[in-house]
Amino acid sequence: MTDDPGAATSAATAAVADRLTALAAQAAARGVDVILVGPGADLQYLAGHSVPSHERLTLLVVPADGAPAMLVPALERPGWNDSPIEVLGTPISTWLDGEDPYDAAVALFPTGTRVIAVDDHLPAVHALGIRDAVPGSDLTVAGAIIGELRMRKGSEEIAHLARVGAAIDRVQGRIGEWLLAGRTEREVAADIAAALIEEGHTRADFVIVASGPNGASPHHEASDRVIQPGDPVVIDIGGPESTGYFSDCTRTYQVAGTAPDGFAEVYEIVRRAQQAAVQVVRPGITAETVDRTARAIIAEAGYGDRFLTRTGHGIGLEVHEHPYMVEGNDRVLEPGMAFSVEPGIYLEGRFGIRIEDIVVVGEDGPVLMNRADRMLKVVG
Amino acid sequence: MTDDPGAATSAATAAVADRLTALAAQAAARGVDVILVGPGADLQYLAGHSVPSHERLTLLVVPADGAPAMLVPALERPGWNDSPIEVLGTPISTWLDGEDPYDAAVALFPTGTRVIAVDDHLPAVHALGIRDAVPGSDLTVAGAIIGELRMRKGSEEIAHLARVGAAIDRVQGRIGEWLLAGRTEREVAADIAAALIEEGHTRADFVIVASGPNGASPHHEASDRVIQPGDPVVIDIGGPESTGYFSDCTRTYQVAGTAPDGFAEVYEIVRRAQQAAVQVVRPGITAETVDRTARAIIAEAGYGDRFLTRTGHGIGLEVHEHPYMVEGNDRVLEPGMAFSVEPGIYLEGRFGIRIEDIVVVGEDGPVLMNRADRMLKVVG
Repeated sequence: MTDDPGAATSAATAAVADRLTALAAQAAARGVDVILVGPGADLQYLAGHSVPSHERLTLLVVPADGAPAMLVPALERPGWNDSPIEVLGTPISTWLDGEDPYDAAVALFPTGTRVIAVDDHLPAVHALGIRDAVPGSDLTVAGAIIGELRMRKGSEEIAHLARVGAAIDRVQGRIGEWLLAGRTEREVAADIAAALIEEGHTRADFVIVASGPNGASPHHEASDRVIQPGDPVVIDIGGPESTGYFSDCTRTYQVAGTAPDGFAEVYEIVRRAQQAAVQVVRPGITAETVDRTARAIIAEAGYGDRFLTRTGHGIGLEVHEHPYMVEGNDRVLEPGMAFSVEPGIYLEGRFGIRIEDIVVVGEDGPVLMNRADRMLKVVG
Repeated sequence: MTDDPGAATSAATAAVADRLTALAAQAAARGVDVILVGPGADLQYLAGHSVPSHERLTLLVVPADGAPAMLVPALERPGWNDSPIEVLGTPISTWLDGEDPYDAAVALFPTGTRVIAVDDHLPAVHALGIRDAVPGSDLTVAGAIIGELRMRKGSEEIAHLARVGAAIDRVQGRIGEWLLAGRTEREVAADIAAALIEEGHTRADFVIVASGPNGASPHHEASDRVIQPGDPVVIDIGGPESTGYFSDCTRTYQVAGTAPDGFAEVYEIVRRAQQAAVQVVRPGITAETVDRTARAIIAEAGYGDRFLTRTGHGIGLEVHEHPYMVEGNDRVLEPGMAFSVEPGIYLEGRFGIRIEDIVVVGEDGPVLMNRADRMLKVVG
């Protein structure tokens, strides 16, 4: 869990109240009778508290018309004491081992419930258990509905992203302490993971150290490869702070020595593509415009087929959430939306380059959550 | 992920081949056309490799009739090199950002597929995305089918459980180093978490330190409460070893000083209930018999309504899996089944007591994976 349930502030409780009201309105507008939310980031956002997900059913029930309710396993009921959702006065029902949790959940639905939308991450066993407990039900997903709320960050949420963004910038600023020829990727990653905690994260969610040819795989993590002089090294790192909001920042470094042929030129192409895609961010453009901006520059330079990923992903209580910066997404950007801008060029068998910042859509243009230097830095 | 994909042994590959064959036979016997498995323990078990779950679709497709296939995001394809599922020759298709992953998945289904069973943990967004991509489909869950395989451990799996069980026993044997009056639960938990790693776990999955009245909440984790002389303290700890198999062991200690009235007597009731429930384990009895055995002793002593949980849960690649030792589960135990036996008595406002061991069903009776002393131990 990402917060202390004993510390529900009035601001947190008010935020939860506003979100539940907005969600019910969204449900009503879309003809959904009830929205169901299990443990995870959606529950943290809508109840101000969550629990580790496991096989026992925990569920927030938000009807389009009527008051929300919660169902939790009896033995976990104490953990919800003083949580924002409880402080709001939401009734919290319990169920015991051996009872049918789906019947207990359905008892909280408004009479005549037919259209049920479940959060995207709800495990299939629960989603289908509820479907089967409501004969004639029409089951759909609520991710797009909840995303309408979550993708527009409030000022408090932006402050969280800025604080955790500064924390990851401090780690990127210290990479030269650890990234040295002769060490393995795994050794470097262990030091970086410790620094994430030191600099203000509650855990190191991901630490990618992709040296030399390993950089050509966008999701390579860290291996026992020994880093060589001159290696390009992709460092893509992040994690949550205590509020649950995530950092995510990538820089590509060069270890002292002779870099592979063409490395500096390709680095400059990625840097220009990333800068252009950040600069194009403003209210009124579409998400795919951000992707196209980066892609046009990389394609123009002849590397269009080596830009293997979309340009970015939303970020907040999850490290990947709506909106996605990808071809085909005509979502119009609005102030408060937060996402990564991370073009890359991946040359199989040789090296990879990626530069990534988190950007919030400001009233007049991009607001950067990361400020670590983007010019090529040689370390070691 | 829990294994090194570069290290697929022939034993691991053969185990995966056997499991896939058995699963297809189960599907055919139940009228299921295709079983779909996403990232998690089921995929680790059936493919010999898994990935962290996120929003991009990764799916193992196991038809009742025909060869398995996999679909992975293009940028993660290198991570599957040399994994058991690939070594077996299973075709691994990829999809690119911007493409529809559900269409790509459906292309791998046998012609005429209608009955689709998805693994219990598959996020609803993927389960319903696939449902909608197959008009007329009948969507159900595969947990019970996959559970038929996973709940019967092979000798290699039992060896993993025994090794990680010995690791957690060593940690329980060292509790006296850390559990001292004047320290907070959180401080003690941090030391225990470090010891889990030292003794052979890849991470501390859960560390419950529930002192004094906190012990009365079965899922209390650790707080800033300062441990007092004489406090009863429930220590429930575990995590996976490198193979992915979990430990889970609970002991209740007493800190030096004057224990609460009646503590020693209640401890003895729980100890006798736990011992009896362990001793009753053998092939041919039902899961609920294990629960009833423990519950009868606790009820006889007058604490039936203070035994708030089921008696146990299966364990393996997940810390909670089938079979569950709970009233209403008439599953007949067979050799190789592995589960916890963990009765408890929870006295609100006073203290809690729980004793837990992992037991494997042997040919003639229980085989204990934990050997840490069960007699009351006073520490500090």
